[in-house]
Amino acid sequence: METLRWENGTLYILDQTALPLQVSYLAAKDYRKVVEAIRRLAVRGAPAIGVAAAYAVVLAALEFGREGAGGFLARLETAANEIRKARPTAVNLDWGVRRQLAVAGEKRSCAPQEIVEALLAEAAAIAAADQEGNKAIGMHGAALLPRGASVLTHCNAGSLATSGYGTALGIIRSAHAAGKIKMVYAGETRPLLQGARLTCFELRRDGIPVTLITDSMAGYLMARKGLDAVIVGADRIAANGDTANKIGTYSLAVLANYHGVPFYVAAPFSTVDPDMPGGAGIPIEERGAEEVTHFAGEPVAAAGTVVWNPSFDLTPGQLITAIITEKGVIYPPYHITDRADGR
Amino acid sequence: METLRWENGTLYILDQTALPLQVSYLAAKDYRKVVEAIRRLAVRGAPAIGVAAAYAVVLAALEFGREGAGGFLARLETAANEIRKARPTAVNLDWGVRRQLAVAGEKRSCAPQEIVEALLAEAAAIAAADQEGNKAIGMHGAALLPRGASVLTHCNAGSLATSGYGTALGIIRSAHAAGKIKMVYAGETRPLLQGARLTCFELRRDGIPVTLITDSMAGYLMARKGLDAVIVGADRIAANGDTANKIGTYSLAVLANYHGVPFYVAAPFSTVDPDMPGGAGIPIEERGAEEVTHFAGEPVAAAGTVVWNPSFDLTPGQLITAIITEKGVIYPPYHITDRADGR
Repeated sequence: METLRWENGTLYILDQTALPLQVSYLAAKDYRKVVEAIRRLAVRGAPAIGVAAAYAVVLAALEFGREGAGGFLARLETAANEIRKARPTAVNLDWGVRRQLAVAGEKRSCAPQEIVEALLAEAAAIAAADQEGNKAIGMHGAALLPRGASVLTHCNAGSLATSGYGTALGIIRSAHAAGKIKMVYAGETRPLLQGARLTCFELRRDGIPVTLITDSMAGYLMARKGLDAVIVGADRIAANGDTANKIGTYSLAVLANYHGVPFYVAAPFSTVDPDMPGGAGIPIEERGAEEVTHFAGEPVAAAGTVVWNPSFDLTPGQLITAIITEKGVIYPPYHITDRADGR
Repeated sequence: METLRWENGTLYILDQTALPLQVSYLAAKDYRKVVEAIRRLAVRGAPAIGVAAAYAVVLAALEFGREGAGGFLARLETAANEIRKARPTAVNLDWGVRRQLAVAGEKRSCAPQEIVEALLAEAAAIAAADQEGNKAIGMHGAALLPRGASVLTHCNAGSLATSGYGTALGIIRSAHAAGKIKMVYAGETRPLLQGARLTCFELRRDGIPVTLITDSMAGYLMARKGLDAVIVGADRIAANGDTANKIGTYSLAVLANYHGVPFYVAAPFSTVDPDMPGGAGIPIEERGAEEVTHFAGEPVAAAGTVVWNPSFDLTPGQLITAIITEKGVIYPPYHITDRADGR
């Protein structure tokens, strides 16, 4: 099942808000529709929104190219800024857009049609590299797991969050292929239930044993059943290893620390933001109260209930046993200054 | 709003599964209906189900008395065993039933009508003592909180979980009356959302400031906003302080420990089970998968998803800063051998 598919000038986006009950695609011919899809989480997961953003730039270029060459690059930059602001936390969004602006900049003396072609090639290259990178992450990470491993994951850092294969779930896929996985526990990931809706769906399709738990069960799971690892994805990693990821990740890191369970972060190198020395500067998106007070449009809490709804949290590098990227495994103390784009 | 009300041979049970959207009462004239209400959580909370169980014994006695004196006490004991098995974890259920059997035993030479009257008086006394005890818990606990306190609670240990006032929420009510509460954070308490549905409802009715969070936000809340205390109820407390309470409590205790936040357990003394030296012997109820895979009857996870759904977890005594009962505040190391019923 493809998360994103480009065909004839249209980006087809798997609508993840409807999973697992419905498999349907949104057809985006306008970059604004991609921005909207990112905002309402039809496409989510840091690597996937990086790729979606790169294709959104292609759609903008197609539109401005059709409307003539006048002010093409300036208009493209304005659109690019709109795209990169769709959501604040995942750095991959900004990274995907910057890669496209660099391509457009290099081709600035060319005709719009030529620029569009270069952007399209770049978007496809980003998607292909993401998928290939995921497999390398899977291989590096699987090597860290023992045979008969029970692992816990949070949210969905799977093929649905990437161009395919997945980061945290890429490691689980590789480990399963190597016969190492006894059980995957998936935290349901309130408020939007990406664990229940997406991770269980993905793993069951692949025949990987998975047990769903509520997020509140993680501590008791570690104490009662034991775990060999917690593996999560990332939305942004600071140079010192501090990691922004789906809300609930930090609690899992503290719990893993207390129980002596290794806590791994799996992410493509493009998730590292070396401009951010520590996590304190990473913007943490806060979303509407309805995500918590309502369920499928129906209220569960009394009308007017006040909510705090951060979508992400920050896990300090010192609670992370290792960060697993396509380049290999990084251990603390973290001091990550390389740039994914070689700047 | 009364959780339980006895009137003319009928136990009226506030149906908590319908809150906060509907306020409706089940009218139970048959003890089996009370058992059913306890099982499906129409009435829940350890102290409240202790009181409900005591009234259920009254209903059984009324029924067997109407049917004649033959085998009255034996039939009452059989019904009592059915009532005490409605749910396994909260010891108050067993305690309420045992108190009634002791009353019936003392009156064994009396006519059924006289026994019924004694049982009814005992049930009313249990309910009254529970409410009075809650106020004492509130007073003892409030004294431990600083002014301007931000506190986190889990599930609902409020007036809805007791005969009125509440245990954890009793402390919060007392502290609020003393002008000490800045903010109460309520964990929504998946899977059945007692925090969102009941605690927010109760506190808002009383004008106590409350902010709802998902359970997964607790760690980040402690790190980002700071907390002065976590206060929870209990379903059973072993002699060494190990405490069974709503699933998610243990994770909160570990998180509080890591952040240096005091972690308080509030419960009537009847929640202590001195026959249980440690928590390992406390039966932990596991409930059906649908509580996690479905929401208001609608599936959220793919069909066939496997679930682990313990309703409670165990928090070791050493993670509990203090246990607050109506008799006062108990500090570790715990060695609680007194019996609530003075046996």
